[in-house]
Amino acid sequence: MPEQPELTIQGWGPHPADASADASGERAPALEATLPKAARRHLARELGWTPRSTPPVGIDEIRLPASRLPDDARAALAGVVGEENVRTDRESRLRRAGGKSYLDLLRRRSGDASDAPDAVVLPGTTDETAAVLALCSERDVVVVPFGGGTSVVGGLAGIDPDDRPTIALDMGRMASVQELDVPSSMVRVGPGMRGPALEEALDRSGLMFGHLPQSWEFATIGGYAATRSAGQASTGVGRFDDLVAGLTLATPSGVLELGHAPASAAGPDLLGLAVGSEGTLGVITEVALRVRPKPATTAYEGWSFRTWAGGLAALQRLARHDLLPDVVRLSDADETRANLLNSGSAGARVLRGMLRARGHAEGCMLVVGWEGLPDIVRARTRAASALLREGGAIRLGRPVGEAWRKHRFGAPYVRDTLLDSGLLVETLETAATWAALPTVYDAVRRALRDSLTRGSRRPLIMTHVSHGYPTGGSLYFTVLADRDEELPIQQWLAAKRAATDAMLTAGGTVTHHHAVGADHRPWMDREIGPLGVEVLRAVKARLDPKNICNPGVLLPD
Amino acid sequence: MPEQPELTIQGWGPHPADASADASGERAPALEATLPKAARRHLARELGWTPRSTPPVGIDEIRLPASRLPDDARAALAGVVGEENVRTDRESRLRRAGGKSYLDLLRRRSGDASDAPDAVVLPGTTDETAAVLALCSERDVVVVPFGGGTSVVGGLAGIDPDDRPTIALDMGRMASVQELDVPSSMVRVGPGMRGPALEEALDRSGLMFGHLPQSWEFATIGGYAATRSAGQASTGVGRFDDLVAGLTLATPSGVLELGHAPASAAGPDLLGLAVGSEGTLGVITEVALRVRPKPATTAYEGWSFRTWAGGLAALQRLARHDLLPDVVRLSDADETRANLLNSGSAGARVLRGMLRARGHAEGCMLVVGWEGLPDIVRARTRAASALLREGGAIRLGRPVGEAWRKHRFGAPYVRDTLLDSGLLVETLETAATWAALPTVYDAVRRALRDSLTRGSRRPLIMTHVSHGYPTGGSLYFTVLADRDEELPIQQWLAAKRAATDAMLTAGGTVTHHHAVGADHRPWMDREIGPLGVEVLRAVKARLDPKNICNPGVLLPD
Ligand SMILES: Cc1cc2nc3c(=O)[nH]c(=O)nc-3n(C[C@H](O)[C@H](O)[C@H](O)COP(=O)(O)OP(=O)(O)OC[C@H]3O[C@@H](n4cnc5c(N)ncnc54)[C@H](O)[C@@H]3O)c2cc1C
Ligand SMILES: Cc1cc2nc3c(=O)[nH]c(=O)nc-3n(C[C@H](O)[C@H](O)[C@H](O)COP(=O)(O)OP(=O)(O)OC[C@H]3O[C@@H](n4cnc5c(N)ncnc54)[C@H](O)[C@@H]3O)c2cc1C
Repeated sequence: MPEQPELTIQGWGPHPADASADASGERAPALEATLPKAARRHLARELGWTPRSTPPVGIDEIRLPASRLPDDARAALAGVVGEENVRTDRESRLRRAGGKSYLDLLRRRSGDASDAPDAVVLPGTTDETAAVLALCSERDVVVVPFGGGTSVVGGLAGIDPDDRPTIALDMGRMASVQELDVPSSMVRVGPGMRGPALEEALDRSGLMFGHLPQSWEFATIGGYAATRSAGQASTGVGRFDDLVAGLTLATPSGVLELGHAPASAAGPDLLGLAVGSEGTLGVITEVALRVRPKPATTAYEGWSFRTWAGGLAALQRLARHDLLPDVVRLSDADETRANLLNSGSAGARVLRGMLRARGHAEGCMLVVGWEGLPDIVRARTRAASALLREGGAIRLGRPVGEAWRKHRFGAPYVRDTLLDSGLLVETLETAATWAALPTVYDAVRRALRDSLTRGSRRPLIMTHVSHGYPTGGSLYFTVLADRDEELPIQQWLAAKRAATDAMLTAGGTVTHHHAVGADHRPWMDREIGPLGVEVLRAVKARLDPKNICNPGVLLPD
Repeated sequence: MPEQPELTIQGWGPHPADASADASGERAPALEATLPKAARRHLARELGWTPRSTPPVGIDEIRLPASRLPDDARAALAGVVGEENVRTDRESRLRRAGGKSYLDLLRRRSGDASDAPDAVVLPGTTDETAAVLALCSERDVVVVPFGGGTSVVGGLAGIDPDDRPTIALDMGRMASVQELDVPSSMVRVGPGMRGPALEEALDRSGLMFGHLPQSWEFATIGGYAATRSAGQASTGVGRFDDLVAGLTLATPSGVLELGHAPASAAGPDLLGLAVGSEGTLGVITEVALRVRPKPATTAYEGWSFRTWAGGLAALQRLARHDLLPDVVRLSDADETRANLLNSGSAGARVLRGMLRARGHAEGCMLVVGWEGLPDIVRARTRAASALLREGGAIRLGRPVGEAWRKHRFGAPYVRDTLLDSGLLVETLETAATWAALPTVYDAVRRALRDSLTRGSRRPLIMTHVSHGYPTGGSLYFTVLADRDEELPIQQWLAAKRAATDAMLTAGGTVTHHHAVGADHRPWMDREIGPLGVEVLRAVKARLDPKNICNPGVLLPD
């Protein structure tokens, strides 16, 4: 198994030691070393912002409250998982404090770790996990399952209405392949396994899994399952939901084994109830996943549309004819412009010139990726290209596609640098039918702009469609603004509230792949209706009668 | 909208008036007019059976108990849906008595309609449905939603542990298209709509839905959703579950509107909880479905494998490389032989000779169907054909495929004739991973053979894989045997019990597409575990606290 690097505490690293401001990799490189001059200028102009240095406090300065875990509970837990797997040391707790949302990072950067768990417990098996849950249920200890710690919706906030002691249940010891069933194209793995380790394990058999969210380097299989994740190639390989063939859920009331056959009509889909449960019903202790042969061909390329509406219409036509590529990513004009400036390469300059000459100066770039058997890829590419051309698109060729691919995991590292320079940086996402998508796009942008504009300061909102479905697509918004250093949290909360209200009113879902966590709870009544919430409560009451399983997420107060 | 023929009371008709033994279409044609001589001889030899005449009692002789619906309840219901939509006449009740399983038909043929509802109520809207449910909840009246009445698992048996008065809630008045959203490839329809009417409505827009179970002529959209149906082209177009974009579920506790966006990470999948709920949680009153363009090309063809194992291995390879055709149907040797004999055409005789000459006398026939854009179909067919040939298959060409297609809805009509001739005729189905499939096949066949062999009498078991998935496939068994005229019900119950036990032990699901109904309830503990059953009970208790919604299905006693 490859060495798994640990995520840094205050951001998204480790950063390369040579570029970083410190040797630990905790500190991000400087703004000048990260963005080309043209991009910095563009940002300054768009945002009405002047770069300034806003570094985080040192790791040692982070304030961590004393652990509240009672000694007898600690001893009982150690009896189940072993002394060495119950940890209350400063570093263990700090590393499991919250996730990686903008607000999480603001807290950690300002020295606040009041949301850290009282202890970290690492079970080794399903039985140990079940025993921990039974024990915590008995002793009124809250359990927050911890995978990779990459939640961006407060999934690890550990909020408890009764303010009980809280443990982070880290799945890191259950991180290996249990069984590979090649004829059935299935693999069973521990929930703590990360994507890179899984791909490496499958590689020997000529297989791949192919779930590639931007957080791929650090997120875990259990976390993906708990949050209904979607990866960059989900249009082709399927959302994580689609790739789960079965799972084991340990709950305070016992263990559920769900989803054996490839398909069944034996009543409602209980597997689909466990997937997306975000730790509220129990802990996912094993996952069976669909795998596939590594593709014989991969082809990534870029296209350009004169307008956003034209791009959306073309995607809709591809979807209708079952010709969506495996990776599909249509950027709006704001995102396209920023991407071209950020690249800073000679190729990008040539490209900008060419686009201007062809009337695409304000154009929208599309990256498509095709994977599979050569003949099939060829036939699909040809048919799709014809539709794209009919829709007015210009083909930009492979280098554009390859450039995107090369940097696909890069953006979050850059975020640390931007946070060091006085910026607000966060993302939002949703999905809607093709009919509703343009309205949702306009409504969310308007809400963000209205909320984040202050005098000469205004946000830059960059948007792309990241996933296509037969009936609609997703929208992913990246928001940059000059940070309000007085009330940074309130600044973002107000914008997020306005954008989310707008999103739901216009017909979008509150989240396409980030999950509910603590942050989206207030909208669940609108998302699934008050009666839908009651159904989830009834299930939770049956499986977790003492409400110890991640009580601070998913369900509204 | 096209005229919708009504299903006959004692079987699967109407039968063509000219061939039928009576003008109403209720009576099936004679055995001699239905099966060619060679097929009759083959059956007699295989089963140790001599054809005999075992006609059903006349419709007028069927015994129907008096309605138990109290007058005040009746009046209250009429207040909601209108006098004309509360029916207690003999024909209305007879037509909603049970479904179309072998046991249902045995009962109806012997003159038993003790399972008929006490009244039939036809709501016109979601609000009326919700009001009926509230009213029945208050007055302790059991509600069994009734779609097309084609359940083969006792889904309409109306069993109630408290033996309360029961109404069939017939969705026949809610049977039209509500909205067609062409850009989003979605249509919203009433639950009472049947497949043919839906296809006709979509045809004008160049669209199709494409869900084609063998019961397509009579089953309804609401029934499909309630039972997680799979159609003959589900490998390509997707199971019914996959085609439901949203639905409205009226429950005694209120109305749930589920599934707006094309995909979401907003918690567990509640839509998947409503789909497959078989009327136990409430009534599906509207369904949003994914539609698609009518295919530019369709190509059906036949192939032959020397062995069943060879055929299964080839399907597995197609699945692994994402090359499964839209329709895939691999028959075992027993089914292949019977199909060739049943056809009786000159072409089939030539084919048999050819197969014998090439060492495929005991071969297994595969029907594949491809639909879509010409270039894509061509590339996929070519790649798949290469894999099939590598797997040792012989191509039989289009006529074999077209012959299957032409008769795709025919078998259930023939069943009536076989029932008239002293036979037991029933089907069973399951799904398992590719690794487990051969074991499940052997185990189920052995169990059926052991249970149904009596002296010189033995069953004919014909099997096919009808649906392929990346991780496995389905198995569909058709069983014929000389009927035990003394204890026909017990004869089948014993065989079914043995086969189902064997299926689950070997790793299959209790049902791939027929649903649970009353018949599979005893196995639900094994299928989803006792705790899984408790989860379903908790959901039901929240939505249907008085247990009036189809209490006789899905959940074990
Ligand atoms: C920079 C960045 C990029 C991202 N890009 C994407 C993306 O492209 N697509 C995407 O889908 N998401 C993305 N995310 C969000 C995040 O990576 C996903 O939600 C991911 O699924 C979380 O996995 P994790 O292992 O880190 O889980 P954690 O963050 O540790 O936990 C997430 C939630 O799941 C629960 N949980 C974790 N493990 C289990 C378990 N075994 N059993 C029960 N509950 C459990 C936790 O309690 C928590 O509520 C991104 C996040 C970041 C920071
Ligand atoms: C000859 C024959 C062939 C068949 N072939 C197939 C096949 O190829 N594939 C397949 O999947 N099935 C097949 N079936 C089974 C059957 O057709 C399916 O289960 C179908 O989905 C039932 O639809 P229906 O409208 O007839 O429902 P019904 O039989 O009327 O009802 C089925 C169940 O669903 C409930 N229900 C019905 N409507 C609603 C509603 N609106 N809201 C809530 N609950 C509701 C009922 O209470 C009942 O429990 C076949 C049956 C027969 C007799």
